[in-house]
Amino acid sequence: MTMSPTNRSPERLVVIGGDAAGMSAASQARRLRTPDELEIVAFERGHFSSFSACGIPYWVGGDVATRDELIARTPEEHAARGIDLRMRTEVTEIDVAGRRVRTRAVDSGAEAWTSYDKLVIATGARPIRPDLPGIDAPGVHGVQTLDDGQALLDSLAATRGRSAVVVGAGYIGVEMAEALVNRGYEVTVVNRGKEPMATLDPDMGRLVHEAMEGLGIRMVDDAAVTKILTGDDGRVRAVGTESAEYPADVVVLGIGVRPETGLARAAGLPLGEHGGLLTDLSMRVRGHENIWAGGDCVEVMDLVSGRERHIALGTHANKHGQVIGTNVGGGYATFPGVVGTAVSKVCDLEIARTGLREKDARRAGLQYVTVSIESTSRAGYYPNAASMKVKMLAERRTGRLLGVQIVGREGAAKRVDIAAVALTARMTVEEMTALDLGYAPPFSPVWDPVLVAARKATAAVREDAG
Amino acid sequence: MTMSPTNRSPERLVVIGGDAAGMSAASQARRLRTPDELEIVAFERGHFSSFSACGIPYWVGGDVATRDELIARTPEEHAARGIDLRMRTEVTEIDVAGRRVRTRAVDSGAEAWTSYDKLVIATGARPIRPDLPGIDAPGVHGVQTLDDGQALLDSLAATRGRSAVVVGAGYIGVEMAEALVNRGYEVTVVNRGKEPMATLDPDMGRLVHEAMEGLGIRMVDDAAVTKILTGDDGRVRAVGTESAEYPADVVVLGIGVRPETGLARAAGLPLGEHGGLLTDLSMRVRGHENIWAGGDCVEVMDLVSGRERHIALGTHANKHGQVIGTNVGGGYATFPGVVGTAVSKVCDLEIARTGLREKDARRAGLQYVTVSIESTSRAGYYPNAASMKVKMLAERRTGRLLGVQIVGREGAAKRVDIAAVALTARMTVEEMTALDLGYAPPFSPVWDPVLVAARKATAAVREDAG
Repeated sequence: MTMSPTNRSPERLVVIGGDAAGMSAASQARRLRTPDELEIVAFERGHFSSFSACGIPYWVGGDVATRDELIARTPEEHAARGIDLRMRTEVTEIDVAGRRVRTRAVDSGAEAWTSYDKLVIATGARPIRPDLPGIDAPGVHGVQTLDDGQALLDSLAATRGRSAVVVGAGYIGVEMAEALVNRGYEVTVVNRGKEPMATLDPDMGRLVHEAMEGLGIRMVDDAAVTKILTGDDGRVRAVGTESAEYPADVVVLGIGVRPETGLARAAGLPLGEHGGLLTDLSMRVRGHENIWAGGDCVEVMDLVSGRERHIALGTHANKHGQVIGTNVGGGYATFPGVVGTAVSKVCDLEIARTGLREKDARRAGLQYVTVSIESTSRAGYYPNAASMKVKMLAERRTGRLLGVQIVGREGAAKRVDIAAVALTARMTVEEMTALDLGYAPPFSPVWDPVLVAARKATAAVREDAG
Repeated sequence: MTMSPTNRSPERLVVIGGDAAGMSAASQARRLRTPDELEIVAFERGHFSSFSACGIPYWVGGDVATRDELIARTPEEHAARGIDLRMRTEVTEIDVAGRRVRTRAVDSGAEAWTSYDKLVIATGARPIRPDLPGIDAPGVHGVQTLDDGQALLDSLAATRGRSAVVVGAGYIGVEMAEALVNRGYEVTVVNRGKEPMATLDPDMGRLVHEAMEGLGIRMVDDAAVTKILTGDDGRVRAVGTESAEYPADVVVLGIGVRPETGLARAAGLPLGEHGGLLTDLSMRVRGHENIWAGGDCVEVMDLVSGRERHIALGTHANKHGQVIGTNVGGGYATFPGVVGTAVSKVCDLEIARTGLREKDARRAGLQYVTVSIESTSRAGYYPNAASMKVKMLAERRTGRLLGVQIVGREGAAKRVDIAAVALTARMTVEEMTALDLGYAPPFSPVWDPVLVAARKATAAVREDAG
C-alpha cells in the first residue's frame, strides 16, 4: 500500500543536544526527508550550537580571533534548513515507553513534554571536575564549552599576574599549555601520570615532557592536586599538591571527560563499563528500535582490541551524526568502530597515536613485540628535515600491527594515518613494509619513517618467533 | 649433511649496477651472510654509487648545497662493509649458461669475465632523448645522474642569459622548472600533453598548469619540440616547436625514462611490454633460479589494475633491493607490487596521485564513477588552512577505491598515503568514510579532505547503482 505523504502528518524526530553529533544527524536526516515527511526538533541547553570544542584552545591562545569562527552553524541557519533547534532548553527526562521527552527552559524554568517517533541522544560529555577545596574559586576554569572559553578569556583579561597552572596533561592539558604560553604566561602543568600524554606509552610521553620543558613549561608529573588555594579576594592564587604549591593567577582543568548519560541512565537505556550508551553498528541504542545515540555520550568499538571504549572527539561525533541521520532518514549506514587515532601539538611538537599502547595490548590479552626508530620528515639532505620518533607494536607470531605512536616536529602527526588505515585493514607489519607511500625528497626519506618502523618490527616478530 | 663453511669456498654474488636497488640488495645480503659465506662483487659504470637521483633537482635548485649530500654510501664505505664495488666498470654481456658476466673498464677499455653463483641485475633506466636537430648542442642537459647534474650546474654558471626551457612536464620537468625558478631563470615548460603532469587526469593537471603560470612559469602545452636552435658559438639559443620558438640559454630534458635492459635482452631474459625485466614475487627473474632484478629496470605489478607497469622511483628500487638481498642471503621476502603512488611539488604547490587515472581504469576494463571536492589542510578557522582539491575514482557497483589525485598547498601531498594504504587493502570508498584518521584543528578539518571525497564518492556509487 502506498500512501501519499499529504495523507498523514509527518513523523517527528527529536534530537537531544545541539552540537556535532546531534546536529549532524539532524542535517543529514533533513537532506533525506522533507519537512512534510519528517519534523525535526532539537534541544540544546547551552548558548551555542554546532561549535568546535576542539578549537577552544586555539581561540584562547589567540590563533583563532573570534568565538564565532568556531561555530559551524547557528540556530538561525539550522532553522533556515528546516530544523527547529530550541536553544537554552534542557531535556530533563526521557519517557521511553511514552515516546516523549520532558524539557525545561533554562531561563524561565517552564516545563513541557514533546513526543517523538524517533529520538537521537547526543548529550555529549562532561568534564571531570575533582572535588577539591577551592575548586569553585574564581579563576578556575574548564574548557568544554564556548561559555567556558569566554569565561577563561575574561579571566585572563582581568588578571594582572602571569602565572597559570594547567591540571592534567592529556590533549586538552597540553593544548591549553600551548595556548597560555602563547598568551605570555608562565605555565606549570601538574599531572597525575608518570609522564604527560597518558594516551602514549611512558617512553613516548617522556619525549613530550622533555619537549614541553624545552618550551619553558614547568612539568610536574606524578603529582595529584590536593587543593586550590585562594587569596584574600577569594580568587585562586596557587595550586597545591601533597608536596608543593604552584602559584596560579589562573587554573585550567584539563583532566578529561565522562559520557553525559544521566538522562539515559534514568530512562533505563543500556550503558557500558565506561558509562557511555551502547549502540549497535547503525548507532541505534541496543534494544531500542527508534532511539539512536552518538558523539561523546556513547561507547565505540575498538577494532584492534575488540572491546568498547569511550573517546570524546569531534571527528567521531560528526561521523556518528552522519550515520544516524542516514538511518533515521530511511537510508543505511554503519559506524564500524575506531582504531583510536589522535593527534595533537604543543607549539611545534607534534604528537600522534593510533591503536593500542602496551598496557592496552596486555589488557586485551594480546602479546606483542615493540620497536622504536628515529627518522626524519623529509630526505635527510633536504632543508628542514625534522626528526621524529616512531614506536610500533606488533602481535607476537602473527605480526599483526597493533599500534603506532609518533612524536616529532613538522610532518610527524598526520603520518599516523598510514597506520590507522593499516590497523583498519588488519595488516601485518611485514605487509606494511611493502606499502607504496608517497616519496619525494621534500616529503619523505626514501623509506618513510613508518616503513622504517615496520621493517624493524618485522625483524622483531621474526626474531621473537625464531 | 651439514658442511662446515670453512670446507668450501664462498659463493659469489655479482651485482650489475651500483645504485639504489643493486647496493641495497648487496647490503642486505651482506647483513645475512659473512664474506666467508658470500663474496659480493658489484659493477658500476658511472662515477658515483648509491646516490639519490630524486635529489638532483633540489641540488640544481640550491636547496641541497653539495653533490656529496646526495650520496648515501661511497664505494669506500661499501668496501668497508665487505662489498667489492668496482666503479667505472661496465658489464657488457651476461653469459647466462656460463654463469658469468663480461666487464669492460670504462677508462682503460680492459675486458674480463667474472663468474657468479647468483646475479642481481640493477641496470636502472635511461632517459628518453629525442632524436632532434641540435639535441647534442652544448647547453642541452639531462638530469639522470650526478654527472648530469654537475654538467647542468656548470652550464648555468657559464651562461650569461637567464632563459631556460624545460622539455617535458612530468615529475622531473616540474621539479626542474622549480629549480630553475629558484636560480632566477625565466622558465618555459614545453609539454607534449594537453596539460602538465600526465600522471594526473587532465582536469587535475589543469590546476598544476594554472599554479605554475601563477609562479611566473610560461606553460606551453600540447606542443612537440621539433628542433633545438643553436647560435654562432654552437651553443643552444632556443627551442623550436611547429609553431613557435622559445629562447633558451639552457635546455633541460625531462621527458621520462625507459628501462635499461639491453644487456638482459641480449642474454635472452624475459622482458615485458614496457621493456622491463619480468620477475616473480621474490624479484627473481622469471625462469631463472639464480638471477634477480630490481629497481628502474624491472616491471612491477600494479595491484589495482592487475597489469604490469614500469615505474622508475627510488623508493621502489630500495624496496626491491631489500627483498632481493633478503632472498639472496637465504631469507624470504616478497615485493607484492605497487599502487602507483607519487608525490611532487612545484614551489609551494603539492601534487600527489595513487591508483588509476580515468584512462588507466578504462584500459584495465574497469567502469568507474569520479568525484572531486575542495577542502583544506586544517580546520577552516585555523591559521594557514591551505586549500586542496581531491579527485577520487571508485569502481561502479562495488565501490572499490580505484584512485586518488590531490593538488593543493601545504599538507596536500602526503594525504595520498591514506588512499595508498586503502588501495592496498582493496577498501571500498564507503569503508573509507569510517576511517579513523587523525583529527585536530591544526592538522585537519573535522572531516579530513580524503574522507570528504570518500563520502561524495560513496554517494556517487549509490546514485549510479540506483
